[in-house]
Amino acid sequence: MINSCLNPIQWKDHQLFLLDQRYLPSKEEWLKVTNIEDCFHAIRDMVVRGAPCIGYTAIFGLCLWAKTHPKTDFAEFEKAAEYLKGARPTAVNLEFEINRCLQLAKKFINGNDADSLYDQLILFGLEQMDLAGTHNLNMAQLAEKELVQLYGQRPLRLMTHCNTGYLACGSLGTALGVITHLHTKSRVEKVWVDETRPYMQGSRLTSYELSKLNIPHHIVVEGAASYLMREKLVDAIFVGADRIVKNGDTANKIGTSTLAIVAKHYGVPFYVVAPTSSFDLNVETGEGIEIELRNPNEILEVSGVRVAPQGSSSLNPSFDVTTGNLISAIFCEKGIIRPQNARSLTNVLLS
Amino acid sequence: MINSCLNPIQWKDHQLFLLDQRYLPSKEEWLKVTNIEDCFHAIRDMVVRGAPCIGYTAIFGLCLWAKTHPKTDFAEFEKAAEYLKGARPTAVNLEFEINRCLQLAKKFINGNDADSLYDQLILFGLEQMDLAGTHNLNMAQLAEKELVQLYGQRPLRLMTHCNTGYLACGSLGTALGVITHLHTKSRVEKVWVDETRPYMQGSRLTSYELSKLNIPHHIVVEGAASYLMREKLVDAIFVGADRIVKNGDTANKIGTSTLAIVAKHYGVPFYVVAPTSSFDLNVETGEGIEIELRNPNEILEVSGVRVAPQGSSSLNPSFDVTTGNLISAIFCEKGIIRPQNARSLTNVLLS
Repeated sequence: MINSCLNPIQWKDHQLFLLDQRYLPSKEEWLKVTNIEDCFHAIRDMVVRGAPCIGYTAIFGLCLWAKTHPKTDFAEFEKAAEYLKGARPTAVNLEFEINRCLQLAKKFINGNDADSLYDQLILFGLEQMDLAGTHNLNMAQLAEKELVQLYGQRPLRLMTHCNTGYLACGSLGTALGVITHLHTKSRVEKVWVDETRPYMQGSRLTSYELSKLNIPHHIVVEGAASYLMREKLVDAIFVGADRIVKNGDTANKIGTSTLAIVAKHYGVPFYVVAPTSSFDLNVETGEGIEIELRNPNEILEVSGVRVAPQGSSSLNPSFDVTTGNLISAIFCEKGIIRPQNARSLTNVLLS
Repeated sequence: MINSCLNPIQWKDHQLFLLDQRYLPSKEEWLKVTNIEDCFHAIRDMVVRGAPCIGYTAIFGLCLWAKTHPKTDFAEFEKAAEYLKGARPTAVNLEFEINRCLQLAKKFINGNDADSLYDQLILFGLEQMDLAGTHNLNMAQLAEKELVQLYGQRPLRLMTHCNTGYLACGSLGTALGVITHLHTKSRVEKVWVDETRPYMQGSRLTSYELSKLNIPHHIVVEGAASYLMREKLVDAIFVGADRIVKNGDTANKIGTSTLAIVAKHYGVPFYVVAPTSSFDLNVETGEGIEIELRNPNEILEVSGVRVAPQGSSSLNPSFDVTTGNLISAIFCEKGIIRPQNARSLTNVLLS
């Protein structure tokens, strides 16, 4: 298991400390967050990132708010919660965890126990992180079983996109958690890490985690996906998910869907690893997923230096939608879902 | 037509001047090249790039050699030519133009006229650049005709990869030449320019050309290919080619094949635009194309600053192979080739 000190979200002495992921891997700097506004900015500006970590940060953000509003009424709490939801619209975990905090708040405030809401929210946040670690391991074990069926016991060449390890999850991780878990079983020959433009989560963060854990890896440009699969250098691909809807369509970091199409073309298994908190069964298909458009400068500048001519602009969608039929399987803590079989999703989720 | 002063290769006063494309778009700096060694390094280090420009630079590199070896014998000239071929192994134009220089050299040296070889090579180089401009226009007109058949006269949303305009070709250009040409007919609504990692030819060079020509464009990350096509924002894709082999398989900048697979998935027409000098009929299929692996630091560093952790390495293939069946058509100066119809290639090339 991942040592808890690797967790980029630390709640200590009634304050929230976030490992500032914008400066990794060159600097390990912790940001002290003392109020909900700072928490909002930390989420929006990607100090913290990854669907699960965004969710936990939001819980602790509401803790910080509750600390200074011990006599709050529910409407006031709801306003704070709505404010925080606006930090990143696509990540369903943000809304999911905030909604659970709203339920807690309703219970305690309506029970005339607003005073204890702060303590309850802290407990809730810490508990969720613990539970996620167990869930991550469940998913990784399911993926391991699937790979044994496909490839037996031989060491594997695995590929991943973006960052889905402890920096994103605060625990073992989802897609990268599978890889980390397989490494503990000596099942990883090599990991192909794609850069993940424009934010370089692959080059900066996934590589950082793999380096810390001594897992052999090579960084490649995203365009190299076809090259690698044509050369038969990839046994399976694992990615995370920001939102999975009813028909199995999945929103994830921009580039995921491009990678899935290439995988399908070459017949390489393409797996999504995500907790059930990433599922949004209120939305029927991928068409219903709102895609966040981020600041064009993330593309026009690199490391703060303008790369493009002054007269050029950019379009910067942060996510894309991978249709369910491109996904070989989704591993969640409750089981394996085969999106080609629509009933499989409901069966697993309702189990 | 493109103004000749935009040509990044200028032969003046018996010297070669190259617009140093490594510093674009922020600096327009010219490098004076006075001998074959400097010419070798300019090609290898990508001062000059793009298959046609690499070819012309090599011709002028041999001019510079011939200038200081007026009494050369053929074996000596051949040695210089072989040396220069090593600068970038995948670009077929380099070999193609050098081989034509070898033929010229054989003729003049064997005819006891080695003295005039220098002048003959200069004339040959200048003539080739002129001729390419005419050829580029031919190809662009063929592409225009194809698009009229598909879309009538409406303005189009076109996508391109890497840089294939005057910075790569010294003339109108191949894929970008089509776009430039269509712009003169008011047929371009918008150009999607993908960044083209790791060297950023899209962000830096294609955007530079489009900005200079006032053609509306947006830069996107390569991973956004699926997003754009899923949203139906792309009418057609145009790319160049470094080498096209007998069955229509095409080597081009890394990422081309990934883009072609996504285009096929969404039914978006995918076109290759390349002069016949990029064809290599001695090679049967893409399997026979050697792929250049470049310096891993091009991926590990961005703008000279290390992005990846010290413990990480990278694999940096510079090209990939797009199989002919993913290509809707190849436009060359002699006509349209439909790689799905193998005979079409030979018919057009032998016409």
